[in-house]
Amino acid sequence: MKLKLSWTCLVTTALALACSTAQAQWGQRGPQVNSPELSDQGEVTFRILAPNAESVRLSAGDIPDLGRGGEMEKDDQGIWSVKVGPIPAGAYRYNFNVDGVSVIDPRNPSTSESNANTWSLVVVPGSPNFDTTKVPHGAVAEVTYYSEPLQRFRRMHIYTPPGYEAGSDQYPVFYLLHGASDSDNSWSTVGRAGFILDNLIAAGKAKPMIVVMPAGHTSSAGFRPPANSEGRPRTDEFTEDFLGAIMPYVEANYRVLTERKDRAIAGLSMGGAQTLNIGIPNLDRFAYLGVYSSGVFGITGNRQGGGPSWEEQQKEKLQDATLKEGLELVWFATGKDDFLIETSRATVELLKKHGFEVVYKETEGGHTWVNWRDYLAEFAPLLFQ
Amino acid sequence: MKLKLSWTCLVTTALALACSTAQAQWGQRGPQVNSPELSDQGEVTFRILAPNAESVRLSAGDIPDLGRGGEMEKDDQGIWSVKVGPIPAGAYRYNFNVDGVSVIDPRNPSTSESNANTWSLVVVPGSPNFDTTKVPHGAVAEVTYYSEPLQRFRRMHIYTPPGYEAGSDQYPVFYLLHGASDSDNSWSTVGRAGFILDNLIAAGKAKPMIVVMPAGHTSSAGFRPPANSEGRPRTDEFTEDFLGAIMPYVEANYRVLTERKDRAIAGLSMGGAQTLNIGIPNLDRFAYLGVYSSGVFGITGNRQGGGPSWEEQQKEKLQDATLKEGLELVWFATGKDDFLIETSRATVELLKKHGFEVVYKETEGGHTWVNWRDYLAEFAPLLFQ
Repeated sequence: MKLKLSWTCLVTTALALACSTAQAQWGQRGPQVNSPELSDQGEVTFRILAPNAESVRLSAGDIPDLGRGGEMEKDDQGIWSVKVGPIPAGAYRYNFNVDGVSVIDPRNPSTSESNANTWSLVVVPGSPNFDTTKVPHGAVAEVTYYSEPLQRFRRMHIYTPPGYEAGSDQYPVFYLLHGASDSDNSWSTVGRAGFILDNLIAAGKAKPMIVVMPAGHTSSAGFRPPANSEGRPRTDEFTEDFLGAIMPYVEANYRVLTERKDRAIAGLSMGGAQTLNIGIPNLDRFAYLGVYSSGVFGITGNRQGGGPSWEEQQKEKLQDATLKEGLELVWFATGKDDFLIETSRATVELLKKHGFEVVYKETEGGHTWVNWRDYLAEFAPLLFQ
Repeated sequence: MKLKLSWTCLVTTALALACSTAQAQWGQRGPQVNSPELSDQGEVTFRILAPNAESVRLSAGDIPDLGRGGEMEKDDQGIWSVKVGPIPAGAYRYNFNVDGVSVIDPRNPSTSESNANTWSLVVVPGSPNFDTTKVPHGAVAEVTYYSEPLQRFRRMHIYTPPGYEAGSDQYPVFYLLHGASDSDNSWSTVGRAGFILDNLIAAGKAKPMIVVMPAGHTSSAGFRPPANSEGRPRTDEFTEDFLGAIMPYVEANYRVLTERKDRAIAGLSMGGAQTLNIGIPNLDRFAYLGVYSSGVFGITGNRQGGGPSWEEQQKEKLQDATLKEGLELVWFATGKDDFLIETSRATVELLKKHGFEVVYKETEGGHTWVNWRDYLAEFAPLLFQ
């Protein structure tokens, strides 16, 4: 025992030295700050050291009640803090506003990417859906591919279920699309997709499947497709990328089953519109469609430009009775407070009018990750059964 | 063409609306800021909107020359900026210091985790080693496992080479450890490990292999192992985790070859010390050892506590001639300006004294990722040949 102790002390001392050097090099100084701090009751204390700041606020859209409107208080060391909650189990993106500057939590390595920036992430446990539990876990990979249609490198995330990496079996594949504020990293961070699948598969509720989470944005500037050589916008770049690069990549590089009955596609918000935009024109290739907090965008408003409506454009596919054979599920869910609820309702009605059987649920809540995690946990067990 | 245009406009308008809503919800307002901006010449302009700040500086340890010491200048919109370079091809961690607060770049989703926080990341291309090139790419997965030795969930990153995810072959495995300032996310972000392997494998220079990148820290507070029930520090927690959880997990869940000749281990700085601490006592299990910018910590100083030295503790293994049969490579590299160079030299001498053949290189530069990327690119081709 003495031997081991001495060696431990030696290493500890040397590493502590190396650490001090490294920390000095990286500019970490001053009082130690613990943030975010979770209590057993689900309270979260957020802290940031900002001795010279005049005002600091916590910003966290999905946290139901931020106390003093997120306003933080400074102690005599210059540490600003606010205690929130108890709040429901969830994965919450947050940042601080320090004198008008958006700041992620400098003490929290856990982050979640959105379309154009990164948020700090705190996970409050307590959910049977997405807690990290002692079950076999899959892997979530970051994959870089070259998109021939878009002529550039792109990134996606791919969940492989427990057993996949050691085995040689083929699996069904579920394409899961993110929303307008998000990136291909969002479903596996704030969305907890990997943990949700791990738990469902372990409980025997969902089939083992591969989940492909592509990047739905094709321009960092926003949603406008770049002009083509004639100065006109190109057709939907994401659809080109999805059909011309993502699906072929997955089918060439992963052990996936490639019949219609083994393919699902779903998405939230923008990703729900993309699901319809890809899924309906290619209905022969997908047996399951999921639309979360979404529908055909613009379906409820007055269209400009005088072109044909989405319904008119998709008429042939919508009316094709043979395509409805082998279509296992069309599933919609939207929160009662969601600003897109009329879009969802109108889209469901449109599909029903054309003879589709649609499962449509209106839940509590709004356009938030609280609902999207739940929708995934409810939708995934319906696939490939 | 007209049909497609109308549909595109419709979707674009709807998505732009959804985006505005989402952005308002998330608090993105004010002038648009582009950061970091790369020029074709390798200059990088960093920008941050902070109209109320009194002083803003860029902090980026690996960038050779920060111009005005990283000091940034404010324009009349309140955007602070500094142009740096041209700087060499590299992956650079940076953040901003806004009136004393460490801030990642609010406009850059790309990040790199370190031990206790997250940095913004900018990649300046131009390196044959780590550029993202049009070659087959592997996948880098985030893997959550339960460590029985440590009684808690832990995370590692695992690179699988091109062909792995579609195939059923078994591969050799390379365990690659990070440094004291880093996390299991560091080698695949700032370290570009996946891209380095992709390029080497495509060029036929390295064998396809699995690269396992574990988390070397066992406590977020630092390096001190927690006290055991008798109030004494436990023996090295990471070694327990590595031998008792990580290797068994990899060998059960990935298609890896499990002979000594198919296993390599290497690490930088703290990870180099861990490589020796794991590799020497278990030399029958590893055929390749790599130590980057490191050695036996404390070897050059006066030890405290009076216990036996590392050499005395490892004597039996160091002197065992049979263990040296089948040991394919012991490889060290350290920069001439590295603060651990004497540690490296003394460790190499110690190993040579005990009959080890050691390849030792002294390179330009110091204790930085500039060197560690290069060392990986030089070391990986020597494995499993």
